[in-house]
Amino acid sequence: MKTRIGILGYGNLGRGTEVAVMSAPDMELAAVFTRRDPQSVSILTEGVPVVSVREIEKWTDKIDVLVLCGGSATDLPVQTPEYAKLFNVIDSFDTHARIPEHFANVDAAAKEGGKVAMISVGWDPGLFSLNRVYANAILPDGNDYTFWGKGVSQGHSDAIRRVKGVKNAKQYTVPVQSALDSVRNGENPTLTTRQKHLRECYVVLQEGADAAAVEKEIKEMPNYFADYDTTVHFISEEELLKNHAGMAHGGIVFRSGKTGINKENNHIIEYSLKLDSNPEFTTSVLIAYARAVKRMYDEGVKGAKTVLDIPPAYLSTMSGEELRAHYL
Amino acid sequence: MKTRIGILGYGNLGRGTEVAVMSAPDMELAAVFTRRDPQSVSILTEGVPVVSVREIEKWTDKIDVLVLCGGSATDLPVQTPEYAKLFNVIDSFDTHARIPEHFANVDAAAKEGGKVAMISVGWDPGLFSLNRVYANAILPDGNDYTFWGKGVSQGHSDAIRRVKGVKNAKQYTVPVQSALDSVRNGENPTLTTRQKHLRECYVVLQEGADAAAVEKEIKEMPNYFADYDTTVHFISEEELLKNHAGMAHGGIVFRSGKTGINKENNHIIEYSLKLDSNPEFTTSVLIAYARAVKRMYDEGVKGAKTVLDIPPAYLSTMSGEELRAHYL
Repeated sequence: MKTRIGILGYGNLGRGTEVAVMSAPDMELAAVFTRRDPQSVSILTEGVPVVSVREIEKWTDKIDVLVLCGGSATDLPVQTPEYAKLFNVIDSFDTHARIPEHFANVDAAAKEGGKVAMISVGWDPGLFSLNRVYANAILPDGNDYTFWGKGVSQGHSDAIRRVKGVKNAKQYTVPVQSALDSVRNGENPTLTTRQKHLRECYVVLQEGADAAAVEKEIKEMPNYFADYDTTVHFISEEELLKNHAGMAHGGIVFRSGKTGINKENNHIIEYSLKLDSNPEFTTSVLIAYARAVKRMYDEGVKGAKTVLDIPPAYLSTMSGEELRAHYL
Repeated sequence: MKTRIGILGYGNLGRGTEVAVMSAPDMELAAVFTRRDPQSVSILTEGVPVVSVREIEKWTDKIDVLVLCGGSATDLPVQTPEYAKLFNVIDSFDTHARIPEHFANVDAAAKEGGKVAMISVGWDPGLFSLNRVYANAILPDGNDYTFWGKGVSQGHSDAIRRVKGVKNAKQYTVPVQSALDSVRNGENPTLTTRQKHLRECYVVLQEGADAAAVEKEIKEMPNYFADYDTTVHFISEEELLKNHAGMAHGGIVFRSGKTGINKENNHIIEYSLKLDSNPEFTTSVLIAYARAVKRMYDEGVKGAKTVLDIPPAYLSTMSGEELRAHYL
């Protein structure tokens, strides 16, 4: 029997999850739950119902894993604990500083419900976290470096849109090539914020706005831009929609560490992602871990888990024998 | 109490393991076991005994994890099952084709002894295997690419040394840059053996040997060189010892895969290692997994395991709380 997936929330992540389920031979989409009027939501998979979230409790015995596709700011802190009482759930909660609190809330709820609840699944947190933990355990004497991009930062784009005179904007976070080169050369550099990332802004002005004033306000904005080398390009709305609507992203996690009786040998572990679609890749990770959630639940596991708790084999459709024969 | 590590076999891997234990705050070296005369073996750690392997059974209650540092061809197929009856063990068995058979033998022995036995730990098999399994689960529709080097291949160096007229030799396996570029560009190429790796040979001739004949015999050697672009450099023995004694190695595992309703988005996962010392890095991986072996044993686990079975958190000295707060 296939693992029955439910999706809660049908934005970019919800659609990505739907597409990822299509590529999973051992899974099927059972229902999409929405806070909107279900009549107004049109999904890709034929024959699968769109259901009001108010009806979700009727689905507890028809869903094996519920994929929570809401945002980390306000949706998931409420939704994940709420639904972990009723379903096995998985989310992509990505507010790093609030993970311990979210974990505790979700763990209590999942244990109350006798369910498995995975939090913070995706690429960062997620695959990047895995790589940080593996690499730190293997090279205890070393330095971590995380670079993001080239890709759109939603938070920084929003910050630009709040500037007076700005109609629309996209902000790309770009790793600095010389910093990447230095890390790759094993130089173990100490890098300032400015030395690690550039910020490239594409800005559509409102009619009559003062371009110089807008550029100055962006470049001097504390936390968001002041500590970075920032470039501002003014473009038309058509150009923004045509050339900057993509959802490509990526990043690199490095560990550069030393071994040897005199620490004479350096080793560099580099994990790099280059993604055409951030939401589709994130949901591909979610669906692989949804497989692990089902397997743990079937084994009697209860409570909150993160990617750090899951044996790699649990993500695969293959048996241990197949994996050892072909992938080890 | 610290985890007490035993080392069996004191060559490059044994020495690397000893150095890795020094960097592990939660471990201590208890003894080094050798098939040689213990008097003839001098180790780095003061106060730790070198013991004849004939005495090893007296150490069953003084060792938590025995690290087996023998070779995959003849040592480990015998040693790992033999010692898995007496100790928790870990090895770096790397003959890919014989892993299923080795796993079965070790599993039976470890279950008989009530011990945990990890096999095939290192970087390939090992970290590369992990990355293949994670990446295939996440991107089911895609291609795998593994490149090795630049680094010395012992098997190819040995093959050259068997050629008549050759006194000594080192062979480097080198990834072809254009192949790496094509994979990184998301072109999902189909690559022949020749298109993936170059073979660079540094050869010391015996006095009076025919250089042209040696070069021809190397380049036409089936399996080892005939399918590759091979370059042969004749150098002096002094030059070989001075410039080609290093143990640097590395490699890259790629997964390039597509998502989207029309498979319109490509994603590239790249995992790369650049290692100054192959044996020291390999043993750093062994020691991180030795930590997991001890933890599983304390939990009552029995039998053979591979890296695919181990939650990442088990490699770390940190608690789940610390890992979630700082590494997720």
